[in-house]
Amino acid sequence: MTRDPIGEAHRQWVAHGWPEAADGMAMVTSLVRAQQLLMERIDAVLRPRGLTFARYEVLRLLSFTREAAMPMSRLGSLLQVHPTSVTSAVDRLVGQGYVERVRSDSDKRVVRAVLTEAGREAVEEATAALNDAVFEAPGLPGAEVLGLTERLTALRAGLGDA
Amino acid sequence: MTRDPIGEAHRQWVAHGWPEAADGMAMVTSLVRAQQLLMERIDAVLRPRGLTFARYEVLRLLSFTREAAMPMSRLGSLLQVHPTSVTSAVDRLVGQGYVERVRSDSDKRVVRAVLTEAGREAVEEATAALNDAVFEAPGLPGAEVLGLTERLTALRAGLGDA
Repeated sequence: MTRDPIGEAHRQWVAHGWPEAADGMAMVTSLVRAQQLLMERIDAVLRPRGLTFARYEVLRLLSFTREAAMPMSRLGSLLQVHPTSVTSAVDRLVGQGYVERVRSDSDKRVVRAVLTEAGREAVEEATAALNDAVFEAPGLPGAEVLGLTERLTALRAGLGDA
Repeated sequence: MTRDPIGEAHRQWVAHGWPEAADGMAMVTSLVRAQQLLMERIDAVLRPRGLTFARYEVLRLLSFTREAAMPMSRLGSLLQVHPTSVTSAVDRLVGQGYVERVRSDSDKRVVRAVLTEAGREAVEEATAALNDAVFEAPGLPGAEVLGLTERLTALRAGLGDA
């Protein structure tokens, strides 16, 4: 059988009496599968560098700020993940010497994550590798990349993304 | 700041001298984020039922076969995951009483996963709940659902999906 498993699932959905859910199922399953394929490529770049995509995103966000630092709570809201996920990512990055936790001088209740020089080098090197291996050739021609991003942006809005 | 973090990242990519990677980065990050939002909805349905999406997909595939059974190797190739992932999902499903492992009569080297009656009930109930909560209203109007699925199918092909 060389049929696409997702097309086959769509036919099964209709045959089982769920036609009004079949298109949504195919879209969701296609998106999950595309994400798996992209994440395999991303992980192939990041794993040898001791990074996950979540930790890479933390380093990337910090690197874009003027002081290479950000309150932990702000990291969580920008990455749109649970505070515990940010804590665990930053724990690992601290262990790797890429980030330090520093209590704010102006407000002792605020803990900031600060990028170290080693973290700066790691994120610059990882970004160059990701650009080269994934982002410059993400699986679609340029114009289709923009069309897909537009539709994904509409989907995120429809799913209540902040 | 109410700007979209992905639009902001795109601006940063261009500003840092990586314009040829900026669109791909925005597409990949949009897809990863949309997948997170969808998976939150899926998990909200499946977690109370003791299932993950991976285990649900195993039950669903088995339920669509005539004998409600399939060789482990075939499950892996249809789900496009590593054999170890199928083994671990089926281990959990066996523990839950939803699947049994049965050595094939015709070829003793082949181990088949067989859906139990409890597994059949669980997957039917979970499918009805997923259809209702996610697949019938996946975050986009119907015509846009089809347009997005088409583009995701092209992306999967461009990423070398089997």
